[in-house]
Amino acid sequence: MQAHDKKISSVVHFIGVGAMGGPMAQRLHEGGHVVRVFDSNPQRVEAFSAQHGKQTELSLEQLGSDADYVVMILPNSGVVEEVLFGQNGLVSRLKKNAMIIDMTSGQPNMTLSMGQRLEALNILFIDAPVSGAVPRAQNGTLTIMTGGEAASVERAEPLLSLMGIVTRTGPLGSGHAMKALNNLVSCAGYLIGIEALIIGSKFGLDPTVMVDVLNSSTGMNNSTQKKFKQYVLSRKFDSGFPLHMMVKDIAIAMGLARNLGVPAPFGNLCLDLWSGAKGVLGPNVDHTEVARLSEQLAGWQIPKSNS
Amino acid sequence: MQAHDKKISSVVHFIGVGAMGGPMAQRLHEGGHVVRVFDSNPQRVEAFSAQHGKQTELSLEQLGSDADYVVMILPNSGVVEEVLFGQNGLVSRLKKNAMIIDMTSGQPNMTLSMGQRLEALNILFIDAPVSGAVPRAQNGTLTIMTGGEAASVERAEPLLSLMGIVTRTGPLGSGHAMKALNNLVSCAGYLIGIEALIIGSKFGLDPTVMVDVLNSSTGMNNSTQKKFKQYVLSRKFDSGFPLHMMVKDIAIAMGLARNLGVPAPFGNLCLDLWSGAKGVLGPNVDHTEVARLSEQLAGWQIPKSNS
Amino acid sequence: MQAHDKKISSVVHFIGVGAMGGPMAQRLHEGGHVVRVFDSNPQRVEAFSAQHGKQTELSLEQLGSDADYVVMILPNSGVVEEVLFGQNGLVSRLKKNAMIIDMTSGQPNMTLSMGQRLEALNILFIDAPVSGAVPRAQNGTLTIMTGGEAASVERAEPLLSLMGIVTRTGPLGSGHAMKALNNLVSCAGYLIGIEALIIGSKFGLDPTVMVDVLNSSTGMNNSTQKKFKQYVLSRKFDSGFPLHMMVKDIAIAMGLARNLGVPAPFGNLCLDLWSGAKGVLGPNVDHTEVARLSEQLAGWQIPKSNS
Amino acid sequence: MQAHDKKISSVVHFIGVGAMGGPMAQRLHEGGHVVRVFDSNPQRVEAFSAQHGKQTELSLEQLGSDADYVVMILPNSGVVEEVLFGQNGLVSRLKKNAMIIDMTSGQPNMTLSMGQRLEALNILFIDAPVSGAVPRAQNGTLTIMTGGEAASVERAEPLLSLMGIVTRTGPLGSGHAMKALNNLVSCAGYLIGIEALIIGSKFGLDPTVMVDVLNSSTGMNNSTQKKFKQYVLSRKFDSGFPLHMMVKDIAIAMGLARNLGVPAPFGNLCLDLWSGAKGVLGPNVDHTEVARLSEQLAGWQIPKSNS
Ligand SMILES: NC(=O)C1=CN([C@@H]2O[C@H](COP(=O)(O)OP(=O)(O)OC[C@H]3O[C@@H](n4cnc5c(N)ncnc54)[C@H](OP(=O)(O)O)[C@@H]3O)[C@@H](O)[C@H]2O)C=CC1
Ligand SMILES: NC(=O)C1=CN([C@@H]2O[C@H](COP(=O)(O)OP(=O)(O)OC[C@H]3O[C@@H](n4cnc5c(N)ncnc54)[C@H](OP(=O)(O)O)[C@@H]3O)[C@@H](O)[C@H]2O)C=CC1
Ligand SMILES: NC(=O)C1=CN([C@@H]2O[C@H](COP(=O)(O)OP(=O)(O)OC[C@H]3O[C@@H](n4cnc5c(N)ncnc54)[C@H](OP(=O)(O)O)[C@@H]3O)[C@@H](O)[C@H]2O)C=CC1
Repeated sequence: MQAHDKKISSVVHFIGVGAMGGPMAQRLHEGGHVVRVFDSNPQRVEAFSAQHGKQTELSLEQLGSDADYVVMILPNSGVVEEVLFGQNGLVSRLKKNAMIIDMTSGQPNMTLSMGQRLEALNILFIDAPVSGAVPRAQNGTLTIMTGGEAASVERAEPLLSLMGIVTRTGPLGSGHAMKALNNLVSCAGYLIGIEALIIGSKFGLDPTVMVDVLNSSTGMNNSTQKKFKQYVLSRKFDSGFPLHMMVKDIAIAMGLARNLGVPAPFGNLCLDLWSGAKGVLGPNVDHTEVARLSEQLAGWQIPKSNS
Repeated sequence: MQAHDKKISSVVHFIGVGAMGGPMAQRLHEGGHVVRVFDSNPQRVEAFSAQHGKQTELSLEQLGSDADYVVMILPNSGVVEEVLFGQNGLVSRLKKNAMIIDMTSGQPNMTLSMGQRLEALNILFIDAPVSGAVPRAQNGTLTIMTGGEAASVERAEPLLSLMGIVTRTGPLGSGHAMKALNNLVSCAGYLIGIEALIIGSKFGLDPTVMVDVLNSSTGMNNSTQKKFKQYVLSRKFDSGFPLHMMVKDIAIAMGLARNLGVPAPFGNLCLDLWSGAKGVLGPNVDHTEVARLSEQLAGWQIPKSNS
Repeated sequence: MQAHDKKISSVVHFIGVGAMGGPMAQRLHEGGHVVRVFDSNPQRVEAFSAQHGKQTELSLEQLGSDADYVVMILPNSGVVEEVLFGQNGLVSRLKKNAMIIDMTSGQPNMTLSMGQRLEALNILFIDAPVSGAVPRAQNGTLTIMTGGEAASVERAEPLLSLMGIVTRTGPLGSGHAMKALNNLVSCAGYLIGIEALIIGSKFGLDPTVMVDVLNSSTGMNNSTQKKFKQYVLSRKFDSGFPLHMMVKDIAIAMGLARNLGVPAPFGNLCLDLWSGAKGVLGPNVDHTEVARLSEQLAGWQIPKSNS
Repeated sequence: MQAHDKKISSVVHFIGVGAMGGPMAQRLHEGGHVVRVFDSNPQRVEAFSAQHGKQTELSLEQLGSDADYVVMILPNSGVVEEVLFGQNGLVSRLKKNAMIIDMTSGQPNMTLSMGQRLEALNILFIDAPVSGAVPRAQNGTLTIMTGGEAASVERAEPLLSLMGIVTRTGPLGSGHAMKALNNLVSCAGYLIGIEALIIGSKFGLDPTVMVDVLNSSTGMNNSTQKKFKQYVLSRKFDSGFPLHMMVKDIAIAMGLARNLGVPAPFGNLCLDLWSGAKGVLGPNVDHTEVARLSEQLAGWQIPKSNS
């Protein structure tokens, strides 16, 4: 069997069919693969099997047994490690040359150490975290950053390309690292823009004018373009991506820095302010609400404007 | 005389014909205005009068006397204040309803207080700092942010539009504020991107791949697009805009924050790191060399790559 | 008249008889001087004159006229400048060689520029801010940091020593600088100690044990000794010194740094967090409540303990 | 055998007889215990056995075999884990109820996880890091922070009290946590004091006067008292404790914070600046030289003064 042949249908065990994993598993199914799913949350599994039949449900004990691919998109690398190597860990049941694709926003260093254990067992392993939220998971247009051996990534691409556009970032763990660092840069751009909006609007600048000028000048970034008018000036704060997930991502980036002994004063303050927002506002608010922490610290609210 | 009529030629006293002011004065001259210049550096004045005739030279004592417009682009607001109100200050010689256009990257609060004094004297005053460096000054495509009374800005626009594209930012001082805040957001985007490149490349990511991924994802900003490959990965550091000027701009932004009592922890750390780079590397290096401070702190250099 | 002779009674105009100024003026009165007072808050003046007679009240127009000394302890240097040079400013009424003693926690740079104007008028001027709160004002044991010409400070010492212990810090403004920098070091010691208590107590350390260990080790500072058990672990937060005054002091220190072009990343973050606490908690809470901001950011409260 | 009876001599395997461990092992020997030593550096072992006889040398394979106590003071918790559980790990040879005393400045979370593994093997384990440098190791006056079961700590105290004064900090790991947090508070006090000295001296204050005022006021901390005149104003920078060790300690404190999800913006900036000094100045300079990074950032040196 050539599992990496585009035309051939593979057996995919998909673990974690939550907000992201659900629609992603659906895309693989629609792509012609035999998809079976597992999730610690039974409702998630039922939602999938209601559509695709009871035979798509996997028990914990079945995980891995006949899979060509195990795809995982789970809360974090700790959960991934548990599923692979914990009690009843699926690794013991996997056939040789099966491939594990970890699409979780995970920790590069944990990924590297799991990789070493899996290599010793002749199990292929790549990291392939995604960028883009639920709608892009649904229509298969996620950005997928893949780390791992070139041959492994190549073999995974037919599957991955059903879910999004693949970018190869380098060796194992590099996908996880890139994802976290991208989000760090994004979060910092958001935060400094908010501080600028607070200072400027308190001085008397119209925040809509500010966003327009930033966007047509060197202050432009992804947040000035896609978040400030949409979620902040509108006071809607409804991007759909929760604060705690963003904090997790940039904590991964900064964990990487600490492990490498790289001082990153600016990145760490960014994390501490985002993380502090989680303390003050709660973990489940929209990530764009981090603006409210800056506003509370300043005792000033950026005026609402509909533009 | 309708000085604001495009077809009518005005008498413009242009103060500060340095790297920026020189070509800007040239544009006004080419636009048909009677341009006379002053600069504390006699070579700057000679460079202009060599082309346009001795009669374009102004002495300190002549400054303002027969001007319809005084245009200034000087090192900072302290110099502007000196030129206007210091010993031999030109304000005393200005005719009523003459207009002063301050194109310096200035301090909004000083601009406001000078504005109050000028209003009492019936002298029109706007701030009109520019974004874009020498080449755009030469071909008249600067971005010009104007703050001041709508009627004043309108009257100035025929002149300004010879030098660039005008954006109205609001009341007096708002141009200076906007310019500084834009550069703050830009500098923060640069700095966090550098930290990400250091962490990522030390982990093993290829910096060129990193920049590509950032640019196609939420980590995108003006620096990832226009500075990282060009000046950092190439190790050329030759953007042409010096470090001390950037530090001045973001110091203005943070001075504004302090005056307004707005805590801006992220912005202040940004300033302190840029300002610290000036201490470590010297004021006259290219502003993109701030990356070298982050590298020195990390004991790690982002690998060169030609892409 | 030898105003600096201990035995000789001087005429002192005392401006600002608030929480601190009231008891300090009282000490001068008890020391045998002719003390007359002014305050923009009439109740403050009445409180003094109720005890010492109506003739101790000064009108704004009388300020300075027959004074040997003008002593001021006002909210900030802006108010000092207004009182000296504003409309009805007292400087115009002062006799030559009169001395102004500014005991406000003031801004060194404003002090220096006021000093230049006063020197031109032959008026002596020193800064003499105080450390120690109301009880020490009452019993005359404040720490007084004096900046100014040695001869001037010497002449002021008999008066000052009625209010506290005098330390000469150097030239004009140095008292104000020293006071602000001292409070900066104090605030940073407080803040880092709070972060340590939060981390440690969340890990499982007993905060009382922590404070004891800090105090007997290199982590010792004024706050570990005199504030943590007293105001934090007791959850009393009743030191009596308000948050906004502390924020003002460290804002002065950081204003000094910015004016000198000194990057002070650690000091600026300290200020921004203290200043942010003012935004979140309000200006009038006890300064020790800054701990609550750190707690809110962490989503964790240092356990109460009575030790 | 009652190993915890003061009068009874125990067999102690002492691992890590470096700058600190050497004199500490010596103290145990002088206290009447049978001390045998191991170190990955053979010269360290020879230095000990030259004095106390060849029979005091242990091979890797002998480690643990007949020990009542294993005392370790090693570079970090990673090394401790290797020695206990790595290839040839001593744990396999330890008799039941033997006790391991980890005096390394270690990571509390690693200590906790090692503790779980050791408990399962019926091996007693406490952490007992020390504060105080080589001279205090030599005369047995270290501060020793002990974490672990009360009964275990009690049993260890006769040994520990030969090396210093014991403070019980709580459960396992609490000694390591306390030590790291104490050093964090100490490092922050040092750093803010340096920034204050730079700002103040650039303004014109005499640094000696500054230190005196801080010491007699609320700015007082361990560094103002014991380090600023001694090592900074003297420009000697010869405290004897290297930079990389201090950075390790505060990295442990901040690792704890990150593991607990506690944002500690001030602590993290402290770490990043200390860590950045390591990058700029090298790991082996005296820890007091961190002042030089602040000076380089400021482009200003605190004047030398002999006081
Ligand atoms: N949401 C988004 O927009 C994006 C998310 N991501 C990343 O994708 C990952 C998943 O996110 P998302 O889908 O939103 O999260 P969800 O919480 O919606 O889905 C995760 C699912 O995994 C389940 N799960 C948890 N533990 C286990 C376990 N041990 N075994 C099996 N299943 C388990 C969860 O169950 P339970 O509910 O019981 O915990 C849940 O159903 C995260 O790493 C996130 O950072 C990346 C890009 C965008
Ligand atoms: N360079 C750039 O790319 C950009 C610059 N700017 C801003 O434009 C302004 C000017 O910058 P730039 O042209 O590069 O600087 P330059 O130094 O080249 O030009 C400034 C000129 O002003 C002169 N000057 C100084 N003091 C006085 C005085 N009292 N009276 C008259 N002339 C005086 C200077 O003379 P001397 O040489 O003797 O000091 C110099 O010739 C600054 O505020 C800068 O921040 C904005 C955007 C881009
Ligand atoms: N409180 C303390 O423990 C310490 C305070 N300080 C410093 O001492 C100074 C005074 O503090 P404190 O006494 O507590 O403050 P208070 O507010 O109690 O006293 C200040 C007094 O000045 C008055 N005032 C304000 N403006 C004017 C004016 N233009 N002319 C005359 N009087 C005016 C105020 O009146 P109104 O009420 O109308 O504003 C008030 O009565 C501050 O600079 C503070 O930082 C220093 C060490 C300790």
